[in-house]
Amino acid sequence: MTIYLDNAATTAVDPRVLKAMQPYFSKHFGNASSLHGFGQRARAALEDAREKVAALIDSKPEEIIFTSGGTESNNLAIKGLAWAHPNKKHIIISAIEHHAVMEPCEWLRKHGYDITVLPVDSYGLVDPKAVERAIRPDTLMVSIMHANNEIGTIEPIERIGAICRAKDVFFHTDAVQSFGKIPIDVDAMHIDLLSASSHKIHGPKGVGCLYVRKGISLVPLAHGGGHERGLRSGTENVAGIVGFGEAAAIAKKEMAADAKRLTALRDRLIKETLKIQDSWLNGHPRQRLPGNANFGFRYIEGEALVLQLDMHGIAVSTGSACSSKSLEPSHVLLALGLRHEEAHGSLRVSLGKFNTRADIDALLKVLPQTVERLREISPFKRKYK
Amino acid sequence: MTIYLDNAATTAVDPRVLKAMQPYFSKHFGNASSLHGFGQRARAALEDAREKVAALIDSKPEEIIFTSGGTESNNLAIKGLAWAHPNKKHIIISAIEHHAVMEPCEWLRKHGYDITVLPVDSYGLVDPKAVERAIRPDTLMVSIMHANNEIGTIEPIERIGAICRAKDVFFHTDAVQSFGKIPIDVDAMHIDLLSASSHKIHGPKGVGCLYVRKGISLVPLAHGGGHERGLRSGTENVAGIVGFGEAAAIAKKEMAADAKRLTALRDRLIKETLKIQDSWLNGHPRQRLPGNANFGFRYIEGEALVLQLDMHGIAVSTGSACSSKSLEPSHVLLALGLRHEEAHGSLRVSLGKFNTRADIDALLKVLPQTVERLREISPFKRKYK
Repeated sequence: MTIYLDNAATTAVDPRVLKAMQPYFSKHFGNASSLHGFGQRARAALEDAREKVAALIDSKPEEIIFTSGGTESNNLAIKGLAWAHPNKKHIIISAIEHHAVMEPCEWLRKHGYDITVLPVDSYGLVDPKAVERAIRPDTLMVSIMHANNEIGTIEPIERIGAICRAKDVFFHTDAVQSFGKIPIDVDAMHIDLLSASSHKIHGPKGVGCLYVRKGISLVPLAHGGGHERGLRSGTENVAGIVGFGEAAAIAKKEMAADAKRLTALRDRLIKETLKIQDSWLNGHPRQRLPGNANFGFRYIEGEALVLQLDMHGIAVSTGSACSSKSLEPSHVLLALGLRHEEAHGSLRVSLGKFNTRADIDALLKVLPQTVERLREISPFKRKYK
Repeated sequence: MTIYLDNAATTAVDPRVLKAMQPYFSKHFGNASSLHGFGQRARAALEDAREKVAALIDSKPEEIIFTSGGTESNNLAIKGLAWAHPNKKHIIISAIEHHAVMEPCEWLRKHGYDITVLPVDSYGLVDPKAVERAIRPDTLMVSIMHANNEIGTIEPIERIGAICRAKDVFFHTDAVQSFGKIPIDVDAMHIDLLSASSHKIHGPKGVGCLYVRKGISLVPLAHGGGHERGLRSGTENVAGIVGFGEAAAIAKKEMAADAKRLTALRDRLIKETLKIQDSWLNGHPRQRLPGNANFGFRYIEGEALVLQLDMHGIAVSTGSACSSKSLEPSHVLLALGLRHEEAHGSLRVSLGKFNTRADIDALLKVLPQTVERLREISPFKRKYK
């Protein structure tokens, strides 16, 4: 028995997505830049996928640039915009951005950029007024994520976008966790650049996109044959992009129903889990992703909990998979105001389309006893007794 | 009936490769950075693929950095090395490099780098002595491709590598066309950095690698969670990488036999095609990739020939798919000394593992009459009469 509750890290490819991809490996395998029939069929498939992805965020298809994933999209948005507009050298981000936003900014900082890192409140919310106050004449862009990957908090990006538009500053949002999960409208939300990833919405890994509002110039990360309107050279990953398109089309149809169902499962999970003594919820109680729950358990290590639950056949995480090898506590949890030892005791349960009530029941059956057993052997517990 | 003879642009995924990939979409779909079983199975699959890719070029597995493809690998090699060694600002390339090498260098040129572009002889060969003469105290790297994507000429990279090693200059080779087709030994050839791609060897699109000799530091293009030894952040494309590994393993076993068979097919194609009046072979008669033939036909446009053959169900190209939308003649053919009108009349036939003698026969059956008919309506022909 294995129960997968780590859908914020990655998801299983939907069988319908895989079916859509299959013909593009060994049959319609052409290079989309080729003149012949094989190439033209690949090109048509690419453009069809582009329309499906664009439809999910109400953008024009030609504003979608396919990339290898969310990290590349974030890097292209931030460095690409910086290189294309070298006269402005100030960038505003939040303290809870993903590493794929923070690290490109850190790199730019070494090259003369000034990076303002805005704090968040105890729920992980960025204050739009703080964004407004931080904007200066030399501000190039604001990059605030749509929803946080660890705690699921949904940021007020529509208000932040409106402020950026009024102040004539570019607004980028890392929407890797929200894309396909909650509604996005790039016009209504005043978004100039948006990063999304396929493998978080039951599409294949290795594919993502950057939405680039018409008229915005970027310098590419990958120079070459001029693919993707010159913004991302390299032979297009046709099968992967077809899968991404199909996953986006399915999300458009099923997002509302999935969100409703997962929210109910999540809320049940939260309610039951908080009955465990010395536990708490990280992130906002309501303004959070339908599938995200993130708990704190005093006196224990989140990693030990993950490993114990894995032995019970349940896959969860402490937070971001991308920093699972790091011994540092989560920068997101620290930004909420948690102490180091509190930040070490986190458990992220992230639900996806294929999870059922039975999965939650299975977790709830073993979680209290697992927490209890770990506390019995915890050196922190003894210290606190 | 469709006959695919454009394997230098891309290849069909080998059914054995697709079979190896299948479990990694919807079953073993974990994020390779996750601590739980799903993650660990993904990690094991990644490392297995890394060993298979490394074995094909006699490198250590830890020297293989997985990327999204050849273009990204070339960009990472060139810009990454340049950023990591800012004290040296001279780069040497050849006049027939792929756009994915030329364009990153052009971009660096705008940022203060000096780029020496070495000429080639009429076969497309770079003179190692010219490389040696071009090296200066401020030379950072030499980037010369292993085999050319349009004309198939194989460069003397072992000699070039030895010169670079002796002069203490980094040597990068774009091996996208040669990897898996002809033997490569990174130690014997003194290669420091090597770019390869999966979809040219019957693996999936959207995957490639950069070989980075141990001890060489690079600045990543994609900053983030620190994947791939910090050189390439972003959730690894597990299914794609597994496919790349399988394609590399198959190539290691079958390369020698395939090369022998394809060389015979190619030579028959060349011999018969050159019986057409006013035709010639572009590239070296022997020192060329087993599957590559590139012809010139006086008085006609290559694109018209490609489209006519496509109507006969035969997929070929004029040269690089990556520049098929450009109206400019091939920079490779011009570098050989061809005139503009000669460079416009090229036809690249590139054979792959799944091509048979019957495919060549089918092409040879229609090629002479197609060339003849196009010449009848050619304005160039009338001019030359």
